[in-house]
Amino acid sequence: MPGTESLVAGFRAFRATYFEQRPALYEALVKEGQHPEVLMIACSDSRVDPALLLNTQPGELFVVRNVANLVPPYQPGSHYHGTSAALEFAVRDLQVRHAVVLGHSGCGGMRALRALRRGIRPEREFITPWVSIAAEAGEQVEDGQSDAEAERAMEQAALQVSLRNLRSFPWVREREASGELMLHAWWFDLRSGELWAHDEAVGAFVRIG
Amino acid sequence: MPGTESLVAGFRAFRATYFEQRPALYEALVKEGQHPEVLMIACSDSRVDPALLLNTQPGELFVVRNVANLVPPYQPGSHYHGTSAALEFAVRDLQVRHAVVLGHSGCGGMRALRALRRGIRPEREFITPWVSIAAEAGEQVEDGQSDAEAERAMEQAALQVSLRNLRSFPWVREREASGELMLHAWWFDLRSGELWAHDEAVGAFVRIG
Amino acid sequence: MPGTESLVAGFRAFRATYFEQRPALYEALVKEGQHPEVLMIACSDSRVDPALLLNTQPGELFVVRNVANLVPPYQPGSHYHGTSAALEFAVRDLQVRHAVVLGHSGCGGMRALRALRRGIRPEREFITPWVSIAAEAGEQVEDGQSDAEAERAMEQAALQVSLRNLRSFPWVREREASGELMLHAWWFDLRSGELWAHDEAVGAFVRIG
Amino acid sequence: MPGTESLVAGFRAFRATYFEQRPALYEALVKEGQHPEVLMIACSDSRVDPALLLNTQPGELFVVRNVANLVPPYQPGSHYHGTSAALEFAVRDLQVRHAVVLGHSGCGGMRALRALRRGIRPEREFITPWVSIAAEAGEQVEDGQSDAEAERAMEQAALQVSLRNLRSFPWVREREASGELMLHAWWFDLRSGELWAHDEAVGAFVRIG
Repeated sequence: MPGTESLVAGFRAFRATYFEQRPALYEALVKEGQHPEVLMIACSDSRVDPALLLNTQPGELFVVRNVANLVPPYQPGSHYHGTSAALEFAVRDLQVRHAVVLGHSGCGGMRALRALRRGIRPEREFITPWVSIAAEAGEQVEDGQSDAEAERAMEQAALQVSLRNLRSFPWVREREASGELMLHAWWFDLRSGELWAHDEAVGAFVRIG
Repeated sequence: MPGTESLVAGFRAFRATYFEQRPALYEALVKEGQHPEVLMIACSDSRVDPALLLNTQPGELFVVRNVANLVPPYQPGSHYHGTSAALEFAVRDLQVRHAVVLGHSGCGGMRALRALRRGIRPEREFITPWVSIAAEAGEQVEDGQSDAEAERAMEQAALQVSLRNLRSFPWVREREASGELMLHAWWFDLRSGELWAHDEAVGAFVRIG
Repeated sequence: MPGTESLVAGFRAFRATYFEQRPALYEALVKEGQHPEVLMIACSDSRVDPALLLNTQPGELFVVRNVANLVPPYQPGSHYHGTSAALEFAVRDLQVRHAVVLGHSGCGGMRALRALRRGIRPEREFITPWVSIAAEAGEQVEDGQSDAEAERAMEQAALQVSLRNLRSFPWVREREASGELMLHAWWFDLRSGELWAHDEAVGAFVRIG
Repeated sequence: MPGTESLVAGFRAFRATYFEQRPALYEALVKEGQHPEVLMIACSDSRVDPALLLNTQPGELFVVRNVANLVPPYQPGSHYHGTSAALEFAVRDLQVRHAVVLGHSGCGGMRALRALRRGIRPEREFITPWVSIAAEAGEQVEDGQSDAEAERAMEQAALQVSLRNLRSFPWVREREASGELMLHAWWFDLRSGELWAHDEAVGAFVRIG
């Protein structure tokens, strides 16, 4: 299996650590099942792995990863809705207490959306409709902004769209209203290594890490 | 932000390591962009995190995570297809050389599918249609199997469905035919800490780690 | 080999990571030999491991560990001087640029020294003469100090003794004078997780981490 | 403090992980004190850090590190015996159950000893008498051996000398006889990433990892 040997070697390191040297964690995770407190909706980008970024251990985060960490609006029906299904499982079955949408700087999905707005329409069958979930985020870009400023504005506006879409799911809205579930929008700046969170009281992103 | 403080503390550890102590990796990942060689399609389950399981570093894996690590069939159209969009981005834009579908034992999504087959139909709007992608995997369960055997049979059959669905995407099929892309189905056994891979020559799963 | 299996399992994790998954570091460390920039003189205490405390990688720290992280005075002769030999190898052969004496709170060696001052003389053949290297540190304890205050005062005074003893080695003194070698005294507080360093300009320990 | 900033950054990562994100371990290590089961006598070499090599956590290993991981013979008296003091503290006070002498390939101390045997006597005040603890290990080198073979023979013979010296301490000998303490000699091959242990029944080193 050329090219995946180093991943299999990495698995041996994981296995030696978690099944041979310190088996207690997985014994509990098998016996008691998973009980994560946090649903993380993150980007597929290889540079923004929630477990590495947040230094977590197995069992701590229930994770959805898609292009541009988007949450689609509530649209029940017969279609395949992978993100909505994961959201439903996390909220209704696992009863997580926090849902964090985690965006980041330099997001390829947001760049695709920005290109679309400029009329550049590459031959992509799925990316184009997918990133259009955050179409209105493109309106946040103002004349005279640098590329970095425009991207940051779009990325953070898209997080707001995803928060609003999260609240379009009735069982999310109810749990948030009753205090059982808290929603968060975080943005990781790859260049500076900073973590920012949307502060609803302030109406802006503030640095938290 | 009660309940997420430990994640923010974890971010400080990540930041201190990757931005203060050893900044070279992220400097390169920002300057040169991401160039992962592997697309990993994994489950949202908190116990099956690809970065932890395979001991990887930032930049190595482009990751999709959804319930039961499913790939839907090729269905272009105007709907939101998160997994297909990520697949398209990884294969057509990033030109990954490997796509690995990573399943695992004790999968809640597969249990939901098995319950459906027994006529148990919980009030779930999105999980039910989503896991039905792998409906035919349910047919692999044989009379007289233990729960663990039946689950393993379904989980491994569902991986085959996802491999077949991957090959329904024309740009996946073409790249596999030309040798540019290799497809893999792996299954992680949480109980024993073993990693198994589908060996197409043998027509069965064989242990690789 | 009952009782050491978990260490051997830990070695398998190390081997899988550093020799199978990412062999480049050890290949270079074998080919080019070691070139650490820092000599660390630390306590044998299991809670104060320099590699874990400072998040270092193989090849970064040349480490001496003894009870109470003590440096004896310069006494050439025919006796076995393990710490002085390591110091000589680090400074004269490896030409490290920094020598850090790393103390910590709750040090058993310092407690033994304090007990000695109170006339408690346990039947210990080697610990008693060894910790007496820092005998004058015991004089820093003042009436009315709490145990924690008295221990901290002794531990930090002992670090000063070790710095002074370091400077009694002619080839340390010369290199410090020429700017080739810098000496540091650090103190780690196990209770609060704080790192303090002696600031010679201020004449006191100041928090650095 | 130029040059040590990256270590202080590493400490911040450690602090964020062990004091902010997961404080339970150090809270217990402070409250209950240390209770390591293993004394590790290892080399100061920066490439052979026991915590990294054996993937251990704070609190697991009581560690002595000196040049060439040597144990001197039992010589009570008024001199400063750092290694013997640490040995005494580990065995008599902490009551460890295992003492492991950990050697390695390419040991600079052993090379110094071999050079001495060839009449090369560098101007070193402390290293020369220190490594002479293992003088008889030099006699293991046979004509016609390659440098690597000769070094391995010396390094492994020196481990035997250290085991014998360990047994010259009456309170080590007694505890070994009563089954309270087990002695081990391990040798790590930097080139191949292999771990070998002396098997007393076989009278030779056998690979264990």
